[in-house]
Amino acid sequence: MQHLLLFKEIQADLKLVEKELNKYVVSGEPLLTQASGHLLKAGGKRIRPAFALLAGKFYNYDLEKLLPLTVALEIIHMASLVHDDVVDASMTRRGRPTVKAKWGNRVSMHAGDYLFAQSLILISQYEDKRISKVLSRVSVEMCKGEIQQISASFDAEQKLRDYLYRIKRKTALLISASCQLGAVVTGAPDHLIRALTRYGYYLGMAFQITDDILDLVADEKVLGKPVGGDLRQGIITLPVIYALAHAKEKERLKELVTKQMKSEEEVQETIQLIKNSGAIEYSFAFSNKYLAKAKKELEKLPDVKTKKTFAQIANYIGERTF
Amino acid sequence: MQHLLLFKEIQADLKLVEKELNKYVVSGEPLLTQASGHLLKAGGKRIRPAFALLAGKFYNYDLEKLLPLTVALEIIHMASLVHDDVVDASMTRRGRPTVKAKWGNRVSMHAGDYLFAQSLILISQYEDKRISKVLSRVSVEMCKGEIQQISASFDAEQKLRDYLYRIKRKTALLISASCQLGAVVTGAPDHLIRALTRYGYYLGMAFQITDDILDLVADEKVLGKPVGGDLRQGIITLPVIYALAHAKEKERLKELVTKQMKSEEEVQETIQLIKNSGAIEYSFAFSNKYLAKAKKELEKLPDVKTKKTFAQIANYIGERTF
Repeated sequence: MQHLLLFKEIQADLKLVEKELNKYVVSGEPLLTQASGHLLKAGGKRIRPAFALLAGKFYNYDLEKLLPLTVALEIIHMASLVHDDVVDASMTRRGRPTVKAKWGNRVSMHAGDYLFAQSLILISQYEDKRISKVLSRVSVEMCKGEIQQISASFDAEQKLRDYLYRIKRKTALLISASCQLGAVVTGAPDHLIRALTRYGYYLGMAFQITDDILDLVADEKVLGKPVGGDLRQGIITLPVIYALAHAKEKERLKELVTKQMKSEEEVQETIQLIKNSGAIEYSFAFSNKYLAKAKKELEKLPDVKTKKTFAQIANYIGERTF
Repeated sequence: MQHLLLFKEIQADLKLVEKELNKYVVSGEPLLTQASGHLLKAGGKRIRPAFALLAGKFYNYDLEKLLPLTVALEIIHMASLVHDDVVDASMTRRGRPTVKAKWGNRVSMHAGDYLFAQSLILISQYEDKRISKVLSRVSVEMCKGEIQQISASFDAEQKLRDYLYRIKRKTALLISASCQLGAVVTGAPDHLIRALTRYGYYLGMAFQITDDILDLVADEKVLGKPVGGDLRQGIITLPVIYALAHAKEKERLKELVTKQMKSEEEVQETIQLIKNSGAIEYSFAFSNKYLAKAKKELEKLPDVKTKKTFAQIANYIGERTF
C-alpha cells in the first residue's frame, strides 16, 4: 500500500489513466476483450504511467497530453507480461490465473499482439517523433532481453555484465522511457529530459534487482506467487551469480542451479545456499548503489514537490519487501 | 515464377528491398538473428513490398522514400507468420521447417515481437503521420482477425459475412495498406491514394480466397505443405461455407468439418465432398468478382505502364494454381 502514498499527488490522474486503459482493451471480439480485460483487472502497480505523470510535473504538466502516453506505456508493459506468460508457462501472475491458464496459448499470444498494436495507435497521435522513436527502440531491446534470457537460461557461466545488460533491457529501459517521455510530452528542455531519463534508468535497475531478490526471499502470500520461480525457470539473477562465486558449497550450488527440473526440496536447498553465501545482502547493496545514482540525478532538477516524491520512491525501493 | 514477370519493372528495386530486409533481422543476439534470418531465407513472394513499389509508380516514384516502408510491410507480414506458427503448431511453412519446429515456441514468439518492433523503428522515420496511423490500425485489425479465427474454429454455423470480415483483417487490409502507403510516400494526391487503397483491398480479398481454395485443391509439391491444412485446424473457409449449405451429404460434411482430430482419410473425404458440391467453382467466381472490382478502380488511375501491370496481377490471381 505504501506505493499509493508515494503516488498521492497524481492519484486522481492515475484514476483517469485506469479509465482510459479500460477503453483500450475493449474490442469487437468478446474473447479478446475478455482476455485483455482479465490482465487489466489483475491490476499491477501502474508504475510506468505514474513515472510518466510525475516526470511531467517538472515542467508544464498537462494531463491531456500525458494521458495517451501513460496508457501506451502500461499497455506495452502488459503486452510483454502476456507474452512472458505464454513462453514461461507460468499459471499465476499477480496472484490470479494468467491469461494462458484461462484461455490457452493462442489467445494469449494474440491478446499480447493486440495490446501492443493498440499502444501504437496511441503513440501515433503525437506530433513529436521522439515518442515513437524511443518506444520502438525500447520495444526492440525488450525483445532482445527476452531472447537473451532464453539463451542464458540454466547457464551458470554467465557474468554480472550479462545480467545487468539483461535487466536493463527487460525493465530499466521502459521505466527510463516513462520518465523521459513524460518530460518530452510537456515540452521540457533537454537537460531536464536527460536527468529524468537517467533517474528512471537507475531506478529501473534497482527495481529489477530488488524484484530478483524478492523472488528468492519474499513472503509467498505477499508476493502472490511461489518463491524460487526464477530458479525453476533457470533464470540466473544477481544473488545467484554472486553465490556461484562465493558460496561455500559452490559445486553443489552449480549442480542445483543448472538442473532443469528441480524438486521442491532442491529449490529450497538452492535458496538456502544462496542465502548462506551473503548474496542477499550483496544484492541489496548493489541495488542501493543504483538508488544513490538515481538520487544524484535529482540534484539536477528544479525544486518542485515531485523531486521529494522521486527521492522517496528511491528510498522505498531500497526498503520494499514485496 | 510467373509473378516474377509481373514484378519485372521493379525487379532491381525489389533486390534492394531484400538487401535491406537482411539488415533488419540482424541483432546482437545470435539466437534471434538465426531465428528471424531463417524465416527471411525461407523467402516468400514479397508481395507487399512489390505492391508498395508499384503504387509508388503512379506519382513521384522515389525508391529512397519507399524503401523503409517496403521493409516494414514485409516485416509486419513475417512477424504475423511467425506468430501464426506458434499458435497453429504447424511444423512447415513455405516448404521449410518453421521457426517453431526448429527453436521452440519461446524463441518464435520473441522473434515475432522483435521483427514487429523493428518495423516500428522503420515507420517512425517518416514525417507523414498517415503511415504509422494506417499501419497501427491494420495491425490491430490483424490481431482481431486472428482471435476471430480462433473463436470461429470448427464452427459450422458461421456465415459468409464472418468469413469475409476475417480475411479482410487477416490479409486484405495489409495489402491495401501497401498500395495506399506506397502512394502516400510519393506524395500522391488523395484521389489516387483512394483508388489504390481500394484496388489493394479488392485484390487482397481475391488473393486470400484463392489461397483458401488452393489449400484444398493444390498440388502439394507446388503448395509446399499438405493440402487440407485449414480443415485440420478447423478454419472454415469460403468453399467449406458454400459446401455446408449446398452439398448433397450436408450432415456428413458438417460432422467431418466440426470433428477436431481428423484422420487422413477423413480429410480426403471432406475435400471430396466439398469438390462435389461445386464449391471450388463458386469460390473462384467469388474471387473473380473482387478482381473485377479491383480492375474497375484502375480506371481512375493515370495511364502509366504500371496500370497494365496491376491489371495483369489481377488476371494472374484469377488463374494462379499455387
